[in-house]
Amino acid sequence: MIEDMSNFPSALEKLVEQFASLPGVGGKSAQRMAFYILRLSDNEAKAFADAIIQAKKQVHRCSVCQNLTDRAVCPICSGSKRDVSVICVVSDPKDVAAMERSREYNGHYHVLHGVISPMNHVGPDDIAIKELLKRVNGGEVREVIMATNPDTEGEATAMYISRLIKPLGVKVTRIAYGIPVGSNLEFADEATLFRALEGRREM
Amino acid sequence: MIEDMSNFPSALEKLVEQFASLPGVGGKSAQRMAFYILRLSDNEAKAFADAIIQAKKQVHRCSVCQNLTDRAVCPICSGSKRDVSVICVVSDPKDVAAMERSREYNGHYHVLHGVISPMNHVGPDDIAIKELLKRVNGGEVREVIMATNPDTEGEATAMYISRLIKPLGVKVTRIAYGIPVGSNLEFADEATLFRALEGRREM
Repeated sequence: MIEDMSNFPSALEKLVEQFASLPGVGGKSAQRMAFYILRLSDNEAKAFADAIIQAKKQVHRCSVCQNLTDRAVCPICSGSKRDVSVICVVSDPKDVAAMERSREYNGHYHVLHGVISPMNHVGPDDIAIKELLKRVNGGEVREVIMATNPDTEGEATAMYISRLIKPLGVKVTRIAYGIPVGSNLEFADEATLFRALEGRREM
Repeated sequence: MIEDMSNFPSALEKLVEQFASLPGVGGKSAQRMAFYILRLSDNEAKAFADAIIQAKKQVHRCSVCQNLTDRAVCPICSGSKRDVSVICVVSDPKDVAAMERSREYNGHYHVLHGVISPMNHVGPDDIAIKELLKRVNGGEVREVIMATNPDTEGEATAMYISRLIKPLGVKVTRIAYGIPVGSNLEFADEATLFRALEGRREM
């Protein structure tokens, strides 16, 4: 709920509304954030606004793995030291960051940007599956590791993709249930992610 | 703590840092907010950035009561229907909004923008006390209601100001302890604020 702002100038009201639209931000927090902005110097406030504009302008999907990047091809895809024969499929850019923190994985990634979810009207064509199939069809890929979250939709998405890839003669594995079932890949610690990678099994 | 963002493009990193600088926002929340911005349309993101710039540009202190406004003199100070002989002194613009919600007060306000706090190096000259004294010296004021928060610093500030104003022959009152001691004026409900105004006593 947004607090009654009728006693504040409209420019302040609008800023509070913008902050209140952010995920996990209520009316009181949005008000506190807006007052914080007013206490910044003009330059600091401009830097904040610029950060929004620049992130929107510069950040887009890597043309290969679909992870977020400010280049045409992201550093992981363009790096020569990584194993091109393995692709780890995740649902979210945050999951790539989580996997990289484990320092145990040296292959490539593919970011789906979501999971198949009929409840939320997200079908196979709404996430980056066809881009993955194109890469797998390229011939260099030996193994695809499905690292979607171990929840219902993540499982179903992994299953759906594995059925498309296995006929192409490519090995499809699923990260092991080292990750607590029902939790979120993003919040897993390095050790758990390592065990999950080690214990992966063929689908 | 800000999450390791080394695998994200720098424009995204910068945006996460900006959100993480907001009060009450941790690393994970800042990341979620930044990703939310990336999912906005270009126009929506621009509107967010503009809201920051415009709030900074348009919102400033009322030349009379020091409350935040986008005019030279705020609507309360320029309104003819309000009792100019009473000034309610609060520490924060949010407190004016809280008092107005109670709909029981028809006088004017004065916003100090802080309280005297030696621990935080805030002295009497760092808050809008001299602007208040100027108004009281103007001759129209009959009563000053001290409505700073009922905590140590709010009490000390009320006491300090009352000692400056009483010699001028103006009545100084303190809102009653209807508000639970140690809590925050901003979170008080209308009924409590009403009782606090009614039960005010001379200082």
